[in-house]
Amino acid sequence: MEFKISKDFIAQIEQYIEENREEQLQALLEDIHYADIAEIMEELDSGEASYLFHILDSEKTAEILLELDEEVREKILKNLSPKEIAEELDELSTDDAADIIAELPEGKKGEVISELIDAEHAKDIVDLLRYDENSAGGLMGKELVKVNENWNVLTCVKEMRAQAENVQRVHSIYVVDDDNKLKGRLSLKDLLTTSTKTNISDIYIPKVDYVKVTTPDVEVARIMQKYDLEAIPVVDELGRLVGRITIDDIVDVIKDEADKDYQLAAGISQDVEADDSILDLTKARLPWLVLALLGGFISVRLLNSFDAAMENHKELFFFTPLIAAMAGNVGVQSSAIIVQGLANNSISGSLWNRLIKEVSLSLLNGAILAVILILGSHFLLNKSYDLGITVSVSLISVIVIASLIGTFVPILLNKFGIDPALATGPFITTSNDICGILIYFSIAKMLLGF
Amino acid sequence: MEFKISKDFIAQIEQYIEENREEQLQALLEDIHYADIAEIMEELDSGEASYLFHILDSEKTAEILLELDEEVREKILKNLSPKEIAEELDELSTDDAADIIAELPEGKKGEVISELIDAEHAKDIVDLLRYDENSAGGLMGKELVKVNENWNVLTCVKEMRAQAENVQRVHSIYVVDDDNKLKGRLSLKDLLTTSTKTNISDIYIPKVDYVKVTTPDVEVARIMQKYDLEAIPVVDELGRLVGRITIDDIVDVIKDEADKDYQLAAGISQDVEADDSILDLTKARLPWLVLALLGGFISVRLLNSFDAAMENHKELFFFTPLIAAMAGNVGVQSSAIIVQGLANNSISGSLWNRLIKEVSLSLLNGAILAVILILGSHFLLNKSYDLGITVSVSLISVIVIASLIGTFVPILLNKFGIDPALATGPFITTSNDICGILIYFSIAKMLLGF
Repeated sequence: MEFKISKDFIAQIEQYIEENREEQLQALLEDIHYADIAEIMEELDSGEASYLFHILDSEKTAEILLELDEEVREKILKNLSPKEIAEELDELSTDDAADIIAELPEGKKGEVISELIDAEHAKDIVDLLRYDENSAGGLMGKELVKVNENWNVLTCVKEMRAQAENVQRVHSIYVVDDDNKLKGRLSLKDLLTTSTKTNISDIYIPKVDYVKVTTPDVEVARIMQKYDLEAIPVVDELGRLVGRITIDDIVDVIKDEADKDYQLAAGISQDVEADDSILDLTKARLPWLVLALLGGFISVRLLNSFDAAMENHKELFFFTPLIAAMAGNVGVQSSAIIVQGLANNSISGSLWNRLIKEVSLSLLNGAILAVILILGSHFLLNKSYDLGITVSVSLISVIVIASLIGTFVPILLNKFGIDPALATGPFITTSNDICGILIYFSIAKMLLGF
Repeated sequence: MEFKISKDFIAQIEQYIEENREEQLQALLEDIHYADIAEIMEELDSGEASYLFHILDSEKTAEILLELDEEVREKILKNLSPKEIAEELDELSTDDAADIIAELPEGKKGEVISELIDAEHAKDIVDLLRYDENSAGGLMGKELVKVNENWNVLTCVKEMRAQAENVQRVHSIYVVDDDNKLKGRLSLKDLLTTSTKTNISDIYIPKVDYVKVTTPDVEVARIMQKYDLEAIPVVDELGRLVGRITIDDIVDVIKDEADKDYQLAAGISQDVEADDSILDLTKARLPWLVLALLGGFISVRLLNSFDAAMENHKELFFFTPLIAAMAGNVGVQSSAIIVQGLANNSISGSLWNRLIKEVSLSLLNGAILAVILILGSHFLLNKSYDLGITVSVSLISVIVIASLIGTFVPILLNKFGIDPALATGPFITTSNDICGILIYFSIAKMLLGF
């Protein structure tokens, strides 16, 4: 049931554009969903995309604009006049329109706003631009259905019919008092199943979940998920109903947050995509690589300081990458589990219990790996048991320390209000590499003496 | 506005339970949301939780059951008779009830189903149990509002009132023909704003997105996100409307998928949480660690084979952890970007273009890092320029190869229908460690000769 974009289809469109066959293009794209047209445009060059944009009607182009990649959108908006942009925004809901205006260059913002036709819509959009984009205020839209507690069901349905004209999807119906303060909600179901003469004040549900305009977006997402909400009202400092957030906006927040944690764990410091420019990709990738390189310098220095071992125990050096790799992997596992736990609010129990658990866990893992290592180093690598045992003792110690670092650094960062996801990926592998090598050679020195 | 569980509150509840003060407990928990009570129960031992479960009314306990961690739920269900479980399930929507039955031990399933009171509900649940849990059939619920294309708006509203009694949230209204085949949809807005005498066949929207019962859940999630849907109807092989999936179920699919990719990237092979048992955590963590250890054996062998370098170029060995770490980090970055791109369907262009882009990118990153390395190894580590240049040339080569492996292994896996996320984390770091060390010493051997 989903439309699949084929190469032939793109080629066909490119040909029509070249030949300026406007009507054929309109017919071809008539029945295609705006999300699919956005994908088609991303395959075209910016001149072709702008051409398409001009020949489609603005109800469709407004939605297409919203679906486009930020980069492609920027290019197309550059080719449009403030008046043309305003025409698109008039078709969009307030929150989407505000998001697009926020992306415009400073000078153009005012021009576009002054060209908006619907004064009420313009006022709502300007109002939304005040809020931080990562807060409930930045997520919310102004379109909602609200009724006064002093009405009855009949008035309510009549008023709602009028309000619904401007609202794409009716979620809950919010109940306010004469000062626009949020009092409760009315379920659609109640409205469908109650007599028309009933007073709203008799049937509304006074218990309603809400967030403040300043609540952070991830917090809004957590609350909506936890309480299974499809929409949540947003109130200002005085408790007045100023907007609503719907679950589809939250899906994006959840996806972005998961992507961000994933990218941090992979050592990518900015939100990039495979199709971004080489420069953008370098900017996102280089910082953590430089950090890892500097960490590498420390490991070179450390190994240098143990070079006395080269004399009689040169084979110890063959095992350093193995030890470093195990330290890194164990650290990443521990930190990932904690970071996810912190994100899901599912870490319970005292730090002391966590310490005991993590140590037991690493002793168990370490012991199993140590047995494999002793056997493997003897039978597969033909090393002496002495060496195997030395490396194994180090391996167990390294695993314990690495898992403790992996567990407690994120917890500490979180305590100080820093994103614990920072302590995953290159940060944890680099610091664990260094600790691992230090522990390994210190233990080897004690056991073998050099 | 969110309820915060305090230690004092838990202590209070535990005390009341011990003293058997049923009424006080009911009063205390009266106004607390079921999602919060579920969190409270997770802090209690299973005897205390079961006690609470028995004194709360079944409308609330059914929802609590749904919110509990799978482990806690299993313990509580063990203490309930089939009849008691059936009473809970009678309160739940069909998809949630089916999910809980699916978790029960084989023998108990039939007993519980035979105790369900509402025959229609029981039939729907049994029907849902047939589907794979990772397909649209496994996600969907049976509760929906549907109208016949031959009705008018008045009949439609009347029928909907009846249907809405059983449906918690009204999303779209689906239109079917006499054979129950999906014909289209009716928006709530249209229904609120159209005259009551209009025929449904005149106002319904014939274009409706739908999925089949066999569509995989991640595909459903992608489609609903792309087309911004809050609910999607599900049809069987014959095009008959059999259920609907709502966006809140999709939020869980998106979250689970992101968590799974994150865990794979961190070398965790099963879905675990920080609070799981040590045995579960070990089972999830050990497999990739064993793989990394075996990879480590290969690196030991490799270094062994280059031991002639120990004679005159022992310092080369000090740099192996640095080279291995860089190879690992670069590989993880590349694979993460590709895996995310594949997941979001945003990888465009030919493999050849991707190859050229990845090589240019790594040459750029590599050149910058090589300069830092040459300067650092001379001024910070007091190494000769000869050594610095040798290591730098190797570093650039290693970065290019590592990024190519990181990019193309996931693409290849994806081509063969294997989850590309498998090629992240320990897999990519281990294979890149080995390649990195091989390339490094081979180049060093060529340049320095040993």
